Amino acid sequence: SGLVLVKNPHLDSMEEDILYHLDLGTKTHNLPAMFGDIKFVCVGGSPNRMRAFAQFMHRELGLAGDGEDVADICAGSDRYAMFRAGPVLSISHGMGIPSISIMLHELIKLLHHAKCRDVTIIRIGTSGGLGIEAGSVVITDTAVDSSFQPRFEQVVLDDVVVRSTELDKGLAEELLACSREIPDFPTLIGHTMCTYDFYEGQGRLDGALCSFSSEKKLEYLRRAYDAGVRNIEMESTAFAALCGLCGLKGESCCFHLL
Amino acid sequence: SGLVLVKNPHLDSMEEDILYHLDLGTKTHNLPAMFGDIKFVCVGGSPNRMRAFAQFMHRELGLAGDGEDVADICAGSDRYAMFRAGPVLSISHGMGIPSISIMLHELIKLLHHAKCRDVTIIRIGTSGGLGIEAGSVVITDTAVDSSFQPRFEQVVLDDVVVRSTELDKGLAEELLACSREIPDFPTLIGHTMCTYDFYEGQGRLDGALCSFSSEKKLEYLRRAYDAGVRNIEMESTAFAALCGLCGLKGESCCFHLL
Repeated sequence: SGLVLVKNPHLDSMEEDILYHLDLGTKTHNLPAMFGDIKFVCVGGSPNRMRAFAQFMHRELGLAGDGEDVADICAGSDRYAMFRAGPVLSISHGMGIPSISIMLHELIKLLHHAKCRDVTIIRIGTSGGLGIEAGSVVITDTAVDSSFQPRFEQVVLDDVVVRSTELDKGLAEELLACSREIPDFPTLIGHTMCTYDFYEGQGRLDGALCSFSSEKKLEYLRRAYDAGVRNIEMESTAFAALCGLCGLKGESCCFHLL
Repeated sequence: SGLVLVKNPHLDSMEEDILYHLDLGTKTHNLPAMFGDIKFVCVGGSPNRMRAFAQFMHRELGLAGDGEDVADICAGSDRYAMFRAGPVLSISHGMGIPSISIMLHELIKLLHHAKCRDVTIIRIGTSGGLGIEAGSVVITDTAVDSSFQPRFEQVVLDDVVVRSTELDKGLAEELLACSREIPDFPTLIGHTMCTYDFYEGQGRLDGALCSFSSEKKLEYLRRAYDAGVRNIEMESTAFAALCGLCGLKGESCCFHLL
C-alpha cells in the first residue's frame, strides 16, 4: 500500500499521540492536512544546514516566493528543526544514534498519522572518508558497526535485539546515476561505519582522552577499509534499522569533510 | 593542583587544537583570557534552557546589566550553544551519549587550555522519574546502565573499555543540603539509569516500535527501582566516566518531568 508502518499495537488504543520532541500531536495538529502530501524526507545533523537545504529545494522546485523565510515547523521545541518545501520535508536530527532515534520514532509516527504514501527518506550528512578524495559523496549500501558487521544492536528494556542495517539498493543506484549527470561530483557506493563516539571510537588522536598510538589507529582504519568501509559517521545503523522495519525506502549519502 | 587533566599524549605535539564543534581553537582564540576564571560549568540538553539558565545566573550573581542579551559563545556552530555569567559557563549538549561525549571532549580540552582550576561541573537535565513525585529533583550518586550496573562501556577503536560511573559524593551531599534551604523543593539522592534509547530502551509504549507488553515494562521498571534507580535519562554514564577520568568534580541532578 506504500503506507508507513508503525509496529506498535499500543498506538491504536491511544486517544492522543503527542510527538513531544517535534512539538506536534494528533489532537493539536491536523497531521494529514499538514503532511499528507509529503513524498521525500531529508534528514541531517545540523538545523542551519537543514534550513538551507529547504531553501535550496524551494528554489529548485520553482515554488512561489524566494523561500528565504521558510518557517521551522518545530519552532516550539529546540530539540529538532523541521522545514518543508513542496513535497519535501527537511529535518535536523542532532548528533549520534540516540538523538536520531528519538526523531525517527516521532517522524515515522507523524508520517503514519498523516497517511503519507511512498515516502523516500534520505540522510544527507557529513562524515569522515576512508581512502577517498575529500569532497566525495559516499552513498551507503550497508551500514556497519565498529566491528564492521551489518547490524544494529538495540537495547529493548534490558534485552539486546539485533537488527538489519541494509539500505535500499535500488535507491542507491538511482542516486549514483543522478550524481553522474553532475560534472566534478565524485560519488561512490560503499559501506558506512557508524560509531557511538567521535574521538576514541573513530581513531582520532585529538580528543581529551586517547590511549592508542597513531600506528594502532591506522591499522584499525586499514582493516575498516579492507572490510569495504568508505566513510565513518554516527547515525547510519540506527537510521537503516528503523527505516527498514517501518517500510520507509531509505538511503544515506554523506559528504566527506576533510 | 586542581587543573583539568587531559589524558592524551598526542595533544602536546599539536601546533593548534581546533575545538571544532564549539567553534573555538587555540590559535583563533585566547582561551586563558576568555575562560581562565571559570569555576562552574552547567550543562543540559536544550540550548534555550541553557540560555535561560545563564540569564538566571546573571541575575542571581548581581552582574551588571540585565543579562537578557547574553551572547552564544559558540554562535559560529549550531551543534552546541555556550553562554557565560561571571564564573559560570552554561552549555547545551544535545540528546544522548554520543552528543554529550563530543561536547565534553572539547569542553575538557577548553578548560585545560584555559588553565582553569578547581572546576565543578553539574549536569542540570530533565529525566523520567521512577516511583517519585513529579517535580522532584534526583541528585545522582551513581549512574548505571540499562542492566543497572555502575559502568560505562566505551568502544575505543574496536575494543570495549569499561569505565567507572561514580560521581562526587561530597558534591551530591552539598547539593542536597542546598535544596533543604528551599521550601517545597523535593530532592533526593539515588541512582540514575542511562539508556541509549528513549522509546524501546526506557519502556515507553508510544514509540513507532514497541514489542513488549505493559506488564513487561512495569516488571522491568520495578527491577530498576529495586536496584536503587530513581530516574532515567540518556547522558549520565558518559558524563560520569569522562568527568571522573579528567579530574572534574562532577554531579548530575535532573528534574523529573511527568
